Amino acid sequence: MVFFWMKDPEDEKTIQDFMKGTEDFFKQVEEIKTYHIGTPAGTPREVVDSSYQVSLVVTFDSKEDQDVYQDHQAHLDYIEDYKHLWKRVQVYDSWS
Amino acid sequence: MVFFWMKDPEDEKTIQDFMKGTEDFFKQVEEIKTYHIGTPAGTPREVVDSSYQVSLVVTFDSKEDQDVYQDHQAHLDYIEDYKHLWKRVQVYDSWS
Repeated sequence: MVFFWMKDPEDEKTIQDFMKGTEDFFKQVEEIKTYHIGTPAGTPREVVDSSYQVSLVVTFDSKEDQDVYQDHQAHLDYIEDYKHLWKRVQVYDSWS
Repeated sequence: MVFFWMKDPEDEKTIQDFMKGTEDFFKQVEEIKTYHIGTPAGTPREVVDSSYQVSLVVTFDSKEDQDVYQDHQAHLDYIEDYKHLWKRVQVYDSWS
């Protein structure tokens, strides 16, 4: 799970381009099992953090597949292409 | 997506019981499409927050289904049964 806070949270065009670029990147990594690219659902409950602009949920069949994704050239290019847009990135890696 | 920080993060037995109780609760809510109950994957990268003890990813087909889940008696009972264990709960609701 990844959450992005953009430097310009009002720039909808750039956010849309970034989400499109995220999907293009995901499609290059065959080790990804499922992905979800989202935005805050606007649920105004006290425990809900809606301050981010873009969220990702990416799932893998194994830790090894996640390792491939992590070091994939498409991932490194993606970070290089878009990191200038991000004020803050928060990642939570979970397994079961 | 929900992240729990437990009052006693060292109490593995209680954490296991809580995760079991979470799954029992999920099985009572037919509006849930998929769920994942996880713990930190132990990936030591700078942007990764591994300080929580339990994570949930719960997906729904529609906002309406999520509303039913939110107000479901099994959800209310679950919160009442386990909230004394939680130091902090962080929720991110996303849609696409």
